[in-house]
Parts: sequence; structure tokens; C-alpha cells
Amino acid sequence: MSASPSGPGTSRTRSWWGWGYTDAHPDDAECVALGALLPGTLARPLPVPRVADLKIGRPGVTLPAALAHLVTTDPDARAAHAMGKAYRDVIRALRGRPGRIPDLVARPTDDREVADLLDWAGGQGVAVIPFGGGSSVVGGVEYRGDTHRAVLSLDLTSTDQVLEVDTVSRSARIRAGALGPVLEAQLRPHGLTLRHFPQSFEFSTLGGWLATRAGGHYATGRTHIDDFVQSLRVVTPAGAGTSWRLPASGAGPSPDRLFLGSEGALGVITEAWMRLQERPRHKASASAAFADFGQALEAVRAIARSDLSPANCRLLDPGEALLSGASHHGSSVLVLGFESATAPVDGRLASALELARAHGGRGGRPAAAGDAPADTAVSAWRSAFLRMPYLRDGLARMGAVVETFETAATWDRVPALIDAVRTEVGSAAFKATGNPATVNCRLTHVYPDGAAPYFTVAVAGRPGDEVRIWDDIKAAASDVLHRHRATITHHHAVGRDHRPGYDLQRPDPFALALRAAKDALDPHRILNPGVLID
Amino acid sequence: MSASPSGPGTSRTRSWWGWGYTDAHPDDAECVALGALLPGTLARPLPVPRVADLKIGRPGVTLPAALAHLVTTDPDARAAHAMGKAYRDVIRALRGRPGRIPDLVARPTDDREVADLLDWAGGQGVAVIPFGGGSSVVGGVEYRGDTHRAVLSLDLTSTDQVLEVDTVSRSARIRAGALGPVLEAQLRPHGLTLRHFPQSFEFSTLGGWLATRAGGHYATGRTHIDDFVQSLRVVTPAGAGTSWRLPASGAGPSPDRLFLGSEGALGVITEAWMRLQERPRHKASASAAFADFGQALEAVRAIARSDLSPANCRLLDPGEALLSGASHHGSSVLVLGFESATAPVDGRLASALELARAHGGRGGRPAAAGDAPADTAVSAWRSAFLRMPYLRDGLARMGAVVETFETAATWDRVPALIDAVRTEVGSAAFKATGNPATVNCRLTHVYPDGAAPYFTVAVAGRPGDEVRIWDDIKAAASDVLHRHRATITHHHAVGRDHRPGYDLQRPDPFALALRAAKDALDPHRILNPGVLID
Repeated sequence: MSASPSGPGTSRTRSWWGWGYTDAHPDDAECVALGALLPGTLARPLPVPRVADLKIGRPGVTLPAALAHLVTTDPDARAAHAMGKAYRDVIRALRGRPGRIPDLVARPTDDREVADLLDWAGGQGVAVIPFGGGSSVVGGVEYRGDTHRAVLSLDLTSTDQVLEVDTVSRSARIRAGALGPVLEAQLRPHGLTLRHFPQSFEFSTLGGWLATRAGGHYATGRTHIDDFVQSLRVVTPAGAGTSWRLPASGAGPSPDRLFLGSEGALGVITEAWMRLQERPRHKASASAAFADFGQALEAVRAIARSDLSPANCRLLDPGEALLSGASHHGSSVLVLGFESATAPVDGRLASALELARAHGGRGGRPAAAGDAPADTAVSAWRSAFLRMPYLRDGLARMGAVVETFETAATWDRVPALIDAVRTEVGSAAFKATGNPATVNCRLTHVYPDGAAPYFTVAVAGRPGDEVRIWDDIKAAASDVLHRHRATITHHHAVGRDHRPGYDLQRPDPFALALRAAKDALDPHRILNPGVLID
Repeated sequence: MSASPSGPGTSRTRSWWGWGYTDAHPDDAECVALGALLPGTLARPLPVPRVADLKIGRPGVTLPAALAHLVTTDPDARAAHAMGKAYRDVIRALRGRPGRIPDLVARPTDDREVADLLDWAGGQGVAVIPFGGGSSVVGGVEYRGDTHRAVLSLDLTSTDQVLEVDTVSRSARIRAGALGPVLEAQLRPHGLTLRHFPQSFEFSTLGGWLATRAGGHYATGRTHIDDFVQSLRVVTPAGAGTSWRLPASGAGPSPDRLFLGSEGALGVITEAWMRLQERPRHKASASAAFADFGQALEAVRAIARSDLSPANCRLLDPGEALLSGASHHGSSVLVLGFESATAPVDGRLASALELARAHGGRGGRPAAAGDAPADTAVSAWRSAFLRMPYLRDGLARMGAVVETFETAATWDRVPALIDAVRTEVGSAAFKATGNPATVNCRLTHVYPDGAAPYFTVAVAGRPGDEVRIWDDIKAAASDVLHRHRATITHHHAVGRDHRPGYDLQRPDPFALALRAAKDALDPHRILNPGVLID
């Protein structure tokens, strides 16, 4: 059942249908306890789905002998590559109706093999879905449609080596299939780190981060993976190319920026030179509680405009704070963290807490310096953060519908946007189910000119109708974001689930240029069909 | 003779052939003094060229009545829009052989007029050269070729208003034709600033900065104008579009990044929402001298890797330090400056000076806080920096050949790159002229993973042969950069002068995509022909 590679030195088993490792999944009793939080959910959890129960047909195509060793037709592997890990994917697996199962799963080990597979697929009209860790929550790694003869999932995780480390320029050449822990383990002996820690860190790859413009560890400043790219290597059906390794350049439009965020639709990113950091030696964190969410927003805005640059600056609304155990008093909670490789950060933390207090923040006891946060709220939030996707799957087994989505907007729009999402998406969820919905919000990333709110919607579904309900909620969410001119995604990517919102947002001249680029680079239209461009 | 608009509240006259204001040009006596610095230059300066001496023909085309009011055929205006302000342009004017004089100069006042002019030009096969401040030093604003029926210079400087200021999100919507001082004057009442101060600040526009990915004020961190863009509005022959105003987004490849650096070849940038800063209230600066340039590089690398983020961190080699008056002792000089709107910066300056001393830096007396640097080296360098282009034109009048070029490379390549440029470009200049050449270097921008060296080459030319000599020097420089995998430009753009180097550097898949985008957006191939794409 282990379809994707596990982390380094682990023999834990990845779930083919749900988040992460199977041994971390909530058991039936925990599922029932989770269900009790949402009125109207099932009495007993849905059973864990089994690949053996799926109808997996024979592959619709066979490879020539020279390429046959690169692919598998094993049903477990094919099932594990059918979808990403959105709620929509999880519930479809639980209901025994997963997305289109790919005919083949290929695991190329170098660029030549990637190019050969693309050549073959182009000639045969076979769709190719680039696949990293498979953690997409936006329908980014499945095939929807029927215009291709067969579907090949191109799993890059066999290409997971750090190939070169340049300690003078603090950078490394890393192959795209490296999962977070895999690449960090190879950088650690050099005293360096990429320090890109999305929630999916264990289950997503460098190539996936690059192709989706992932947001990472930092709550302020440079958070998107884009900013850490020195150079990209891309293999397209029309040929391969590598940009020069540069700290910066003004030579024409950035070649890398066209492929960053291209979600496998223009080419396959096979390696990158990445900017690294020294490992932080100084850390400090603390939290502050706010009775008023609006005041908390103002505190965060003040901190974002300062020179203080917290590594973590996450504002949890009362619902988020309650769920994560950061507060049981109906307060909003601001979780602050500072890190540095070179200098103590206590002064910066103290200044940030001062700004929080100036806007009505209470508490704010700085934690002792060190790796483990002493502040209870900080600690509770960190544990909950990594456990959250597992709990979502537990709720799904109880028949709940859970949607998480994120966005970004300039500060002038943020308060009204958050209010509108709460009201309108909450009432869409109620309308679709007849059950009361919870809508929680946190800010995951903040900027001097705006913020990235992240929303979690949970509501008891109607058995068997969960996908339609989820689609309704997603449509309502996209509509609110569009009316408030908030981006359809800050760091989850567009995939197939966000296409309608993305098409509305994308300026026409860029749409023309992108379509033209697609025609030039992928003339047979085999790469991740339906993503970004029809 | 005043062809381009002057700064706000000034009646100074812009030079049609040389840098900046005519009243700031070196007079004949100063030219002679400059010439004395370079063995082999002329005894007397070349005369200041006059438009009246040029053969300016009648325009090869006329506009329909509805558009006629937007254009002028005035010879002064046409001469002033024939070229940018590279040495190559200045010497061609001095020798009475300027680039192709445009048939028409248009000054549209809104997007509708820009679109109408593009429509008309597309139908007529008239080349359109977008023109901001005209300060290009890479042949970015002239027509070279003969495949178009006529040439229209599209001067955007009538569109110079700050249209909206959002103090909550600290950003402003600014029209592309605003020169640096024009937009700063409109932002000042709001206590805000764009803080983008390239050397050409007085004579270049927001649109020009965006179209060329200009590097600005900051020596570290975010220096390119790219990073300060919330949203762009672009008018192309295939239609107009505006990206959403966002602090960040992960929705597909960045639409703005395709037009940033597109140098007028894909569309005309007509306005942008820009991220602003509060005006700095705390400043401190100092300099440190180094006997050894290699050690100075190590000091700069250490500072660039720290969290200190100096606003200014410019390393001058002995020749640069001597020329600017920053040192007369054969030392390299590091000029450091710190700024903040929120907190005193003396601590950061002290830490940076400590790093400099740890690598053999001497001196380093911090200047008193305040606007004016007390440190003599800092002060001397700042004055020389702004005067430098005027002095170049003075040298040109003495028959010298002067080439300035800049690049960026990762730290592992920087020392060998600088050595190679000194040796190889110096010997190319000698070979082309028989005269000894000086090659000076400074670092203008530094990054944790690399640096941007800037070179000045000066040599006495052979009368009448200056353009060929300059071309030889440029070819030698491009060759060294290419072999050392250093970008053909960090912040001067590609234009026509850097095309060969750019073509070698650009990855093939991106070249395919860019050509396809050009075909889609500019089907009649009228926009800045020859720039980026043939």
C-alpha cells in the first residue's frame, strides 16, 4: 500500500486516500469524538477505503520496451496517484468514487527519461500529470476529461538528490523530486537549510513547491518559494533548458517566473539551484490575546509595517484559537516567533509585543529562547497545525464537509473580506446542508501592504452528497473572493478546483501570452490538461 | 531645445544629445581637465552638437485627423527622441551621426490614446518605440532597421499623475510617465515614498523602471523595482489588461513578471499600483578602507549574509575610490548606509563596521545621524555618483571612449569574474585603441548569494572611430560575462546593445514562450522592434 516514498529513514506507510501516514490517522474512536463537535454528523465513521474495492481496469496503452522499465501498472500505485489530498479527493475515495485512475505510473530517474516519456506521450496522445508528493489540495494532480487516449502519472520522487552545495554562495542544486525531509537531511551536514516549511512539508517536493508557488515558513518578508530560486531546469515537450544561476538579473522578463506557478502545464521542472539559509541559532516566541479581532488585525498590520520581520506572525480568530487549544476564552490569539542565525532576537520579540499591547493585546509572555516554545498557546498551535489535515480526514469519515481555502488582499480590503467570507460562505454551507457551519479564520502570512487570510469551513454533510455540497461551498468562496478582489490562491495553487476563479482574475493580455506559450512548449497538449489553460 | 519635460517646478533645459540638464554639463575647460586624466585624448573638446546641423527629413507618414493632435513633427523633439543616453548615443550625436530620427513623437494622455496610436501603427506598419525619460544606456529607445514604414516615438511623460494613494495599504496608483522627482513630489504630502533612486532618478520614469527591471536605492534585499509592484496596467496591440492589486499571490505564473523587463516589446505599461515606504527618519552612514580588494569582498559577503540589511553597501575598488574622491591612498572603500522609518540604526551600522574590521577594514567612523553624511568618503562618493554621467559626456567630447556596464553573479564566481573583466576588457580596449585603458569596479548591489559588480572602462579613442572601438569593448565585456555565467545586465536592461549576450543567456524554452507571447500580443510586430525578440 506504500505508493509514494516515505521520509528518510522511515518505514511508515503513506495513505493512498488520505493525508500523510496511515499510523497517524485518527482511529474510529477519535473520529467519533471529532464528529461530536459538529451537529448532524454520522454516528459511526465511514470505513477506511481499500484499493481492492476499486474497479481498476487494465491500462489503455502500453509502452515500448525501451521505456517499459520506467512505469508500473500496479493497482496500489495507480490508486495512490489518482488524486491529490483535497477534502474533495478524500471524500471521493471514502465514497468509493475516486477520480480517474491513471493507466500508468512512471518513475523516471533523470531528465533524459523524462524527455523520452514526454516524446512518447506526445506521439500517442497520452496525458502526462507531473506528480511530486501528491499533496495538492486543489485538484492539481488528477485527470478530468476524456480527450486523451490514456493517462500517465509522472512521479518525480525518484529524483531526490541534492547534487551540489555551494557554501560560498549558500545555495544548492537540488532535484525536483526531493520531499522536504529528504532535502533537509542532505543539507544539514553543511549547516544549511532551505527553511521552507509548508504544512505539507513531509509530503510535498521541491518540484511541487516550485510548480505551485508554495508559501513556506516565513510569515513576513519572503515566504513564497519563488524568491529562493537561483535557477531552474525545465524539460518541456519542445526541449529542455536551464536558466543561469544568478543572485539577481534584469535581463528581460524573468525566465524562471514563467515556470514558477505553471503547475506542470508548460513543462516539468526537474531541478533547481536554491538559495539557502544558515540554521537559526536564536529563537524566541510568544503569544498575545485580543478581545477584539479588528484590533488584532491592526496590531498585525503595525508589526508587518515595522522592520521587525517575525518568522511567525499568525493571527488566529476565536474559533481557530479554540480548536487549536491556543485559547479557551473566546479571544483571538497572535502567535509570534523570531529566528536568526546571527543575533539574539529577544529585542525584536519585545518590540513586536509592545506593538501588540498598543493595540489591546494581553499576555505576551516571551518564551525562553530555545527550540521549544514555552508559551502554551504557541506550543498548542504548533502541534495542532501539523495534525490539522489528519483531523480533517477524521471529520470526513464522520460525513462532515470540510473546506480550507486561503487568499490574500491589500490591508484596505482585509477586514471586510474576512467578514464577508464568514457571513456568505457560512450561509452557503448552511443552505447546502441545512446544518450550522463553522467558519474560522487565521492569517498565515502578512505583508506591509496586505495579508493572507486562511479559512476553514466545517459543516455536517448529507450522506452521499458531500462532493456537491463542497462544490457549492467552493463556488460561494470563490465568488466572495472575486467580489473583494482577493486572489483565488495565495499558496495552494489553482489546480482544477480554482480554475473558474483564476480565469476571472487573470488579465486578458497575460491569458493570451500564456496560451501562446502553452502552444509553443506543449504542442500536443499532453501536460496536465485542464490546468491553467484549456 | 527642451524636448522632454523637466522636473517639477524647474525650467532647466534637458539636453537632446547628452545626459541630464544642459546647465550641468562640463564646460570646455572642465572637459580639457577631464581629458588630461586619460593619455591620448584630444587637445580641445568636440563642439556641442546642434539639432540645426542634423539632416532631419519630413516624416514618412501622416496621421489621421483624429490622432494628429497627439503628435509633433518638431525637429527638436524628434532629435531628442532618436536615441537614449549611452556613450554610444552621445558620441554619435557629437560626431553628427545620430541614430534614426523618428518620424513622429506622440504624447498620449490616456490609455485610449495609446491604444488608438497602436491600432493605427499596426495598420500602417509603423514601428512604435515606447519612451519614458529617454535615459536608456543600452540602445533601448531607438529604431535600428528598415522593415517599418516609419517610426513613432511614444513619449509617455504626459501621463505623470499619482492617481490614488492608499495609506492603509501603503501603496499608490501611479501613471507610467512620471519621472522620479514628479512622483515623489506627489507622494510626499502623504508621508510616503517609493524610495526607488536609480542614478537616472531625475531623468527616468516609473514606466521605464518597470519595463527595464531597474535596480534602485537599496544595496541589499529588495532592490529591483519588480518587488514593489502590486499591479500593472498594460496596453497591447491585442488589448489592454490590469492585474489585481495584491500583496502576494500564488495563482499561476505571475502575470506582472512577464511584462516587467519586457522593454516595450510586448505592450505599453501605462500605470501601476506600487508598494510604498514611510520616509526614513533614522539614518547613519560610514565608510571603511581596505588595503586588499579580496578582503573587502569577503567583508561585503559577510555583511550581505547578516540580518543587517544596509540600505547602502557599495564597495569601490581603488580606481573608483580615487575618481570619486573617497580615497586617495590606493585603498578600496566600502560605503555603508542604514535607514529606518521606525527605529535608530546606529546599532546595525556598528555591527556592520565590526564585520568590516574583522576582514581588515580600517577607519569606519560612523557619521552623525541625519540627512547629510559626515563621513568624507561617503559624502564624496554621493556627489560623484550623481555627477558621473555628466563627466562621461565631458570625456566623450575629449574623444575618449567610455563604457559602463554591470552584471551579477553568485559569490563563488565574483572574484574571478572581476579579475577577468579587468584583464580582458582592459586589453581589448588597448588593442582597439593602442592607448592604455582604465577599468574600475564597484559593487552596487549585494545579496546573500552574490553581488552586482559595475565596471567603468575609459580609454582615449581614435578620432571618428569611437563607435567601432566602443562596440569592440562591449563585445569583449559580453564575452567575459558569458564565460563566467554572469548576467548580461543586472539593472541596465538588454536593449539593442546587449542582444547578443542576452540571446546566449536566455534558456531555449523561455525563448520559445517569449516569441509566442510576442506573436500573440503584437501580431504586426510594431512594438520596439529588435528588442528581446527578432
